[in-house]
Amino acid sequence: MSISPALTETEPIGIAVIGSGYWGPNLVRNFAASPSFHLRWLCDLDRSRAERALGRYSTVAATDRFADVLDDPAVHAVAIATPAGTHRDVALAALRAGKHVLVEKPLAASYADGLVLVEEADRLGLTLMCDHTYCYTPAVQRIRDLLGSGELGELHYVDSVRINLGLVQKDIDVIWDLAPHDLSVLDYVLPEGNVPVALSAFGADPIGAGRSCVAYLTVRLSGGGIVHVHVNWLSPVKVRTMLIGGSRRTVVWDDLNPTQRVSVFDRGVDVSAGPDLDADERRDLLVSYRSGDIVSPALLEREALRSMVEEFASAIRTGKAAATDGRSGLRILEMLEAATQSLAQDGALVPLSAAEALR
Amino acid sequence: MSISPALTETEPIGIAVIGSGYWGPNLVRNFAASPSFHLRWLCDLDRSRAERALGRYSTVAATDRFADVLDDPAVHAVAIATPAGTHRDVALAALRAGKHVLVEKPLAASYADGLVLVEEADRLGLTLMCDHTYCYTPAVQRIRDLLGSGELGELHYVDSVRINLGLVQKDIDVIWDLAPHDLSVLDYVLPEGNVPVALSAFGADPIGAGRSCVAYLTVRLSGGGIVHVHVNWLSPVKVRTMLIGGSRRTVVWDDLNPTQRVSVFDRGVDVSAGPDLDADERRDLLVSYRSGDIVSPALLEREALRSMVEEFASAIRTGKAAATDGRSGLRILEMLEAATQSLAQDGALVPLSAAEALR
Amino acid sequence: MSISPALTETEPIGIAVIGSGYWGPNLVRNFAASPSFHLRWLCDLDRSRAERALGRYSTVAATDRFADVLDDPAVHAVAIATPAGTHRDVALAALRAGKHVLVEKPLAASYADGLVLVEEADRLGLTLMCDHTYCYTPAVQRIRDLLGSGELGELHYVDSVRINLGLVQKDIDVIWDLAPHDLSVLDYVLPEGNVPVALSAFGADPIGAGRSCVAYLTVRLSGGGIVHVHVNWLSPVKVRTMLIGGSRRTVVWDDLNPTQRVSVFDRGVDVSAGPDLDADERRDLLVSYRSGDIVSPALLEREALRSMVEEFASAIRTGKAAATDGRSGLRILEMLEAATQSLAQDGALVPLSAAEALR
Amino acid sequence: MSISPALTETEPIGIAVIGSGYWGPNLVRNFAASPSFHLRWLCDLDRSRAERALGRYSTVAATDRFADVLDDPAVHAVAIATPAGTHRDVALAALRAGKHVLVEKPLAASYADGLVLVEEADRLGLTLMCDHTYCYTPAVQRIRDLLGSGELGELHYVDSVRINLGLVQKDIDVIWDLAPHDLSVLDYVLPEGNVPVALSAFGADPIGAGRSCVAYLTVRLSGGGIVHVHVNWLSPVKVRTMLIGGSRRTVVWDDLNPTQRVSVFDRGVDVSAGPDLDADERRDLLVSYRSGDIVSPALLEREALRSMVEEFASAIRTGKAAATDGRSGLRILEMLEAATQSLAQDGALVPLSAAEALR
Repeated sequence: MSISPALTETEPIGIAVIGSGYWGPNLVRNFAASPSFHLRWLCDLDRSRAERALGRYSTVAATDRFADVLDDPAVHAVAIATPAGTHRDVALAALRAGKHVLVEKPLAASYADGLVLVEEADRLGLTLMCDHTYCYTPAVQRIRDLLGSGELGELHYVDSVRINLGLVQKDIDVIWDLAPHDLSVLDYVLPEGNVPVALSAFGADPIGAGRSCVAYLTVRLSGGGIVHVHVNWLSPVKVRTMLIGGSRRTVVWDDLNPTQRVSVFDRGVDVSAGPDLDADERRDLLVSYRSGDIVSPALLEREALRSMVEEFASAIRTGKAAATDGRSGLRILEMLEAATQSLAQDGALVPLSAAEALR
Repeated sequence: MSISPALTETEPIGIAVIGSGYWGPNLVRNFAASPSFHLRWLCDLDRSRAERALGRYSTVAATDRFADVLDDPAVHAVAIATPAGTHRDVALAALRAGKHVLVEKPLAASYADGLVLVEEADRLGLTLMCDHTYCYTPAVQRIRDLLGSGELGELHYVDSVRINLGLVQKDIDVIWDLAPHDLSVLDYVLPEGNVPVALSAFGADPIGAGRSCVAYLTVRLSGGGIVHVHVNWLSPVKVRTMLIGGSRRTVVWDDLNPTQRVSVFDRGVDVSAGPDLDADERRDLLVSYRSGDIVSPALLEREALRSMVEEFASAIRTGKAAATDGRSGLRILEMLEAATQSLAQDGALVPLSAAEALR
Repeated sequence: MSISPALTETEPIGIAVIGSGYWGPNLVRNFAASPSFHLRWLCDLDRSRAERALGRYSTVAATDRFADVLDDPAVHAVAIATPAGTHRDVALAALRAGKHVLVEKPLAASYADGLVLVEEADRLGLTLMCDHTYCYTPAVQRIRDLLGSGELGELHYVDSVRINLGLVQKDIDVIWDLAPHDLSVLDYVLPEGNVPVALSAFGADPIGAGRSCVAYLTVRLSGGGIVHVHVNWLSPVKVRTMLIGGSRRTVVWDDLNPTQRVSVFDRGVDVSAGPDLDADERRDLLVSYRSGDIVSPALLEREALRSMVEEFASAIRTGKAAATDGRSGLRILEMLEAATQSLAQDGALVPLSAAEALR
Repeated sequence: MSISPALTETEPIGIAVIGSGYWGPNLVRNFAASPSFHLRWLCDLDRSRAERALGRYSTVAATDRFADVLDDPAVHAVAIATPAGTHRDVALAALRAGKHVLVEKPLAASYADGLVLVEEADRLGLTLMCDHTYCYTPAVQRIRDLLGSGELGELHYVDSVRINLGLVQKDIDVIWDLAPHDLSVLDYVLPEGNVPVALSAFGADPIGAGRSCVAYLTVRLSGGGIVHVHVNWLSPVKVRTMLIGGSRRTVVWDDLNPTQRVSVFDRGVDVSAGPDLDADERRDLLVSYRSGDIVSPALLEREALRSMVEEFASAIRTGKAAATDGRSGLRILEMLEAATQSLAQDGALVPLSAAEALR
């Protein structure tokens, strides 16, 4: 792949952040703190908003002209934190201007749009990466290790709850707003042999907001496991918990418990079955219970966005796909579209296949 | 209705407990403590188990002969804590012997069986009651008041989680084992105008136990709300939480938090919509957030089983239907059967109507 | 030592419980469930209270005549759950009647009274044991192992909090009421080389109850560690937490967290000091921080009182001192008396020495 | 009092931050965000540390020359976040250069030094303020209101726990490091008629660090209440809880529980005593228990440092004493010195009087 012409090996990567709404300032802060990058622009259609986000003491340039960013040869990469509906056009323009691209989740407003971006980045040899921030938390990194190393055994179930009094969005429902977090973590940690094969979604709009504010997703995995996600904008209680049940151990990730974010339970149900049992015999098999220790591993204290930013730098430098590259973004988009389709069909199971084929 | 012949107004009600497995001893303890009852028998097919349950210092008679109980004219009522598959026959024999009947949840192994019991009790003018224990907790009583009085506003959603490392049952799946608790509470607290109209269920049997060990139910309510229940035998973490979201307030019932079992959140999302808005306009309406106090009301400290036992006495004495009478048991059975049907159809929505018609 | 004449090796030990107030019924329940004992009497000055405690279905005899119990040759042992002020006389009478004696905490109302009991039991070769129930919890057993095995390293500090809206006692202050729990656990788990050497106490009686309702104890250990106990009758929040800080690991015992009662933290502060440093140099030494795992060991689920009852049986059968024998009760009494003395002297440090000398 | 000459009513106050260690960057961030201030300098003996704190994109000047700051007529005020031992000299120089002064806690390294600062600021008519940050949290503001309005009734006890694996300091012990937080909150919320009159302290240095790493303070209040503070650098568990028990209600402030930082318990112990009871009669009076609701009031989400910064601006503009002025700093210093003295005297009670006289 081509490295953006002006980029030498030691030079910091020139970066511009596009969009200074809710998430943009977090990107600004992290790119500013990273020695791998030189932050050149914060661009927003509302220039005064960009200026406010930078504060009164910043040397970073604020602009409302995206063209200025694209024309700046010192800009090697852009980070896009604009509304999802604009991702396709903004990212496409950036890629075509030779810039590497980082996009806020979701990658685009539709699978088709996302596919355009993936193909264009491939064609141009540029890095396309999704900011699936949670994948870069020390907690998720550890969970991925636990699943990948086989320490949990076979994957039995994943149950994720992400509820909070949330900003009811104008353009997207609660699934498109919140579930990308859960689904991208799932995509990131799923061990070999566990591919999402079908998805069902139920939703409700009890406040009459015009889109689902409470929703439940069920995902069937090829390995026989089940994944369930509860997202909810209306809960005054904040919960961010994921249970990952394995045949040997179970992990609980409680993102709101800073002293014990990850706990590994050596407790569970064991089934001792001979290989020759028929179905009737299996029903009588012995089920036993393990009551073992709980271990909460020490985790590094490191801001996820900092690690994400360095992964972006590394992908640009090496040309290797980022851990959360455009294809992972596509896999999330396929699940989100399936959810929308299932919602419209009273929860009917919708098969998943397209994105996996691109892996 | 007829009062059992030997029962005078002041005399304690002669009671026998049938079944001394997991639950029977709890009934024994509570009937023994109640001045409304005179506990005469503990009956179990395995008489030594009944004896062990009574201990070495009890004057209550242990027997393995159900006929002795039925023939005892001093027994006015029986409490049945045998496996669900036997409820129909045991309860029917008791009713036909002129005994009032209390049955462990679920009322019977099928809707058809349950209906036989309800009709027979009606015909004989005897009390038929389900031991839906949770309905008699001070927490659920308070929740019912909050919903019934309108303090929560319209019902938006109910989310119930009941997970634990549970005894994998040989004859029933996790839905039939655990969800009766959630569904009976739901049945008990639902305010006017909120009738379950359809149900979907997803399950998984990742350990190869021959029946679902993890399951999710979604229930649609006639008022537009959504109910969701997560039951799980495989979770090493124990959670027993129910969120009840209303238009004005939201209740959280955390049954494992003895100091704050019930919390009422005056926080939420408000939608201000004029009556004449069309769908497009609604999408642009103003959503605002309330950030109010949390109130955890003081609850009586009273064992639910004690209250349940007194409700049984009261129903027998007055001839009035118990709060959790046979019809409530039927409504639960219809939902459980719908869940089984939906499980077999990949989560298809199954309409509910039969039991409600009997109300 | 002599075994009570009527007691053969296989025969259950005849036991009587004296006092059916708050704690007596718990003893009744556990002696009744133990195959090691035959429960013969529940004795209370108010016989109807004893009868109520036994319930309407018990074959255990209720009496208000202590002499009947003492005269019963089938009674080999008594368990005393009367007010502390009566312990001396009741226990002395029992010992002199040849009965082994279990006494509720505290052993007696004063060190002098307790010493009389210890000496009399010694003289008569009878078992004298204190019901320091917490010592028999699986949690405390584990903590004792952790300290004894050196896994925690040297003992640095113990911080115990036992606060709750408690029954304000008429005859004793909050220290005498609650601190015996903390002090008996401390006595039980302290490893070799850590003897309490001095104690200070502060108290307050803000409600004008005539005795301290809030109190703080500080105990100096011979090994250089510090122990602190906070007991409080006026707190609407219930806390029962003990931190045991060691040089290698720290244990947290949270008795109100049933899923993680004991947690072992492999986190701490390490000081790397050469042996030749003088005081000034030590001040500049390198302090470093370990950030290791948290492990919550699986604990048996066993009622502490059950284990305590079996320890009593074992002490009677073998003639060996129980883990919480009369001498441990004396050590607690000396600390309680020192606390009373310190309270009267504005928190002055009171040396401890008498009870340890008897060990 | 004199307003710094160059300061007009509408002009932002020119501010310099001195010290860019642990706390300085927080001050920088908040002064930079406040429209009331114009941040001109960050000064540190190690200029590169100041530069790193500002980052690569800041227009704020970094310097290692304090004189430059003092000589800058555009600087009206300085915020001092240097080690406590330097506070006196740095603050004195700033005052004498006509600058208003904000000082990190503690105000100075000794009461005598603090008094010099208070008197010099008085003499020059300049604002001297302590950054007692916790006093500006919405939680503490609410607690002050609850105590001040009488809603809690009379103050019975305060129990504060502030424990954590903390940075073992080289120059100060754990009391001087952490207790200023608790004591300044106490000073801020204590209602009329509750003045600290005496203090006792126990400490331990089990790791041989050369100063106390675990300590307990007890403070007697003139109104009869008791205050207790537990500070600890060695605890792997982080706790930041304050109980404030009143005769009518009790407040729990749990600073680590973001959804329920403040809870007001309407539970407690009531004593019904006639006015004519003598001491003996009081002992027999009726004690009863209230079991009421728990209310967790909604609190503003506002960073405490932001409010503190605005209070500084307001004190400078109006010439009125800040809520946490130099005198409050002196009161804390007197308690800290008393603690040091008590530590050296085995926990002896040390009377407090000097600082209160200056109020």
